[in-house]
Amino acid sequence: MSTPPTPYLRVDVARLRSNIESAAARAAAAGVTLRPHVKTHKCLEIARMQVEAGASGITVATIGEAEVFAEAGFDDVFIAYPLWVDDAAAERLRTLADRARVTIGVDSPAGAANAGRRLGDRVSALVEVDSGHHRSGGPPERAADVARAGVEVRGVFTFPGHSYAPGGRAAAAQDEARALTVAAGALRAAGIEPRVVSGGSTPSLAASDTDVLTELRPGVYVVNDAQQWELGTVGPEHVALTCRATVVSHAGGRLVLDSGSKVLGADRATYASGHGRLLEHPEARVVQLSEHHAVVDLAGAPLPALGSQVDVVPNHVCNAVNLVDDLWADGGDGLVRWPVAGRGRNS
Amino acid sequence: MSTPPTPYLRVDVARLRSNIESAAARAAAAGVTLRPHVKTHKCLEIARMQVEAGASGITVATIGEAEVFAEAGFDDVFIAYPLWVDDAAAERLRTLADRARVTIGVDSPAGAANAGRRLGDRVSALVEVDSGHHRSGGPPERAADVARAGVEVRGVFTFPGHSYAPGGRAAAAQDEARALTVAAGALRAAGIEPRVVSGGSTPSLAASDTDVLTELRPGVYVVNDAQQWELGTVGPEHVALTCRATVVSHAGGRLVLDSGSKVLGADRATYASGHGRLLEHPEARVVQLSEHHAVVDLAGAPLPALGSQVDVVPNHVCNAVNLVDDLWADGGDGLVRWPVAGRGRNS
Repeated sequence: MSTPPTPYLRVDVARLRSNIESAAARAAAAGVTLRPHVKTHKCLEIARMQVEAGASGITVATIGEAEVFAEAGFDDVFIAYPLWVDDAAAERLRTLADRARVTIGVDSPAGAANAGRRLGDRVSALVEVDSGHHRSGGPPERAADVARAGVEVRGVFTFPGHSYAPGGRAAAAQDEARALTVAAGALRAAGIEPRVVSGGSTPSLAASDTDVLTELRPGVYVVNDAQQWELGTVGPEHVALTCRATVVSHAGGRLVLDSGSKVLGADRATYASGHGRLLEHPEARVVQLSEHHAVVDLAGAPLPALGSQVDVVPNHVCNAVNLVDDLWADGGDGLVRWPVAGRGRNS
Repeated sequence: MSTPPTPYLRVDVARLRSNIESAAARAAAAGVTLRPHVKTHKCLEIARMQVEAGASGITVATIGEAEVFAEAGFDDVFIAYPLWVDDAAAERLRTLADRARVTIGVDSPAGAANAGRRLGDRVSALVEVDSGHHRSGGPPERAADVARAGVEVRGVFTFPGHSYAPGGRAAAAQDEARALTVAAGALRAAGIEPRVVSGGSTPSLAASDTDVLTELRPGVYVVNDAQQWELGTVGPEHVALTCRATVVSHAGGRLVLDSGSKVLGADRATYASGHGRLLEHPEARVVQLSEHHAVVDLAGAPLPALGSQVDVVPNHVCNAVNLVDDLWADGGDGLVRWPVAGRGRNS
């Protein structure tokens, strides 16, 4: 395969494999299952590597993502989202359940009752509880109200997303354990055995309490990104996906690349030092980002020549991947195209 | 066509048409041509409406976008970007030039020499100059150095992107006029007639000096977005594109929608009041955004019911459109699918 035009997303297969294997080994050693969130890569090739390394199944965010992976043979899919099941969603979920074991999220008695009414026992559910990220998820102590509302509940889950804060991962992991303990206890008190107690995020992965959790659902760990680098979750040597970009301008003595927000995504967390990093220039920062331009401050390093190429590390890899039709996998023997099979499956 | 599942992007065709016609009328009255930037919508149906309303041609950001529109019959395409023309790009541009009149951007003598060497007279160029946005574009007073470097130059252009600042549009338009006057003068002094003097951005559109400019290249004006609303460029009654979203959770007494950054985009300018607005609730703000969740502060208004739908206005519409395969056009008689033909054509 010839080299694609820039900007394109390149995967370092050796690093990818190392990231997959180390997380799998950690989960196995702790006696918990790993159910990676594939919204990060949306790529069948990568998900297959994760399952071959021992993943118990996959996590997705939408019915559309579940359809793509189920059609490709993945037979145990958790949609980690408090779906509102309308007629069309119910029909899709029933079709999906013919191909795979399907679990959905529910976070309210009304949502769970609605799902149960429309789906019967075709799918089961986990109750989502809020462990401190304050997004979706109900109060842990009320988990039984959701579990008794009409859908078959197999356990509880949370996303400790407040681990995405400098220095926040240990506290987030403690919050996660506390919330899941309360929620699982509430289910048991109501006579429902919580067979699945699921949590995990990439920043807090090493800190999750595996005495409480039975399952981990990290996503980003598989390739990492500038957010993980800046949070200190990993060093740049574990970043397995970069955006290959061309130097198009030296206007004003600055480095201008063709990797804008239409390929990197526009994510910039409050703690981010810029709009992205350069793999080979740890001191450099993407200081200005528009749709097709990334302006880089190289911290005094000489400007790479016009027409030369550099590797940009996106701030948030999940959104970068969702902007391209293909990843380009570099296993040391040229680039191989890996379609982003679940791209854009937002519904 | 049945209603698509949420989240989806809906276009109000009456508002779209009104936006197109008022900009066309303004350009005609000022005696300048309008060459809309179609990176905003990437949609053939919308571009055809713009040309029917009098647009002189279209502006794109990449060769890939140019290919999509040229294949659909658009015969005058300006790639407003300082392309670095390598072998593959040269071949694509030559093929493109068989279908359409192609103009590219150049912003350095080296880039222009490279383009001229590889392309000969198959394409012409405009010299990009920096009018204060400090992205790409060389110094206006040096425009002739670029113009003499080896590619056929027909004029000069700039993007006054610093108009995207509260209260900044008038000053940006003045900077634009000044930079283009200097650049055009430099070309004339070198014996090159600047037939095209091109500028324009949506915030500064009404302020651009049409005694200096011969051409305007706004993009966002066609549908507008929360940025334009918050900058005061337009009121919400001119917003013609929204993301239709479902209420999936009331966790913590908050409104949680299924329109995350994977459909709205993650753009949040420093002046933005949040991650997006709600069309029917001007006081509301999207206060937290992750890939598949938008958490809304409704400013005390009653929460819409679980399962009900609301219209979210993306902060930056160009990046939202690039996240979906289709727009859904509402002309008052049901929804019609308009493919985002140029989606993801980043190269």
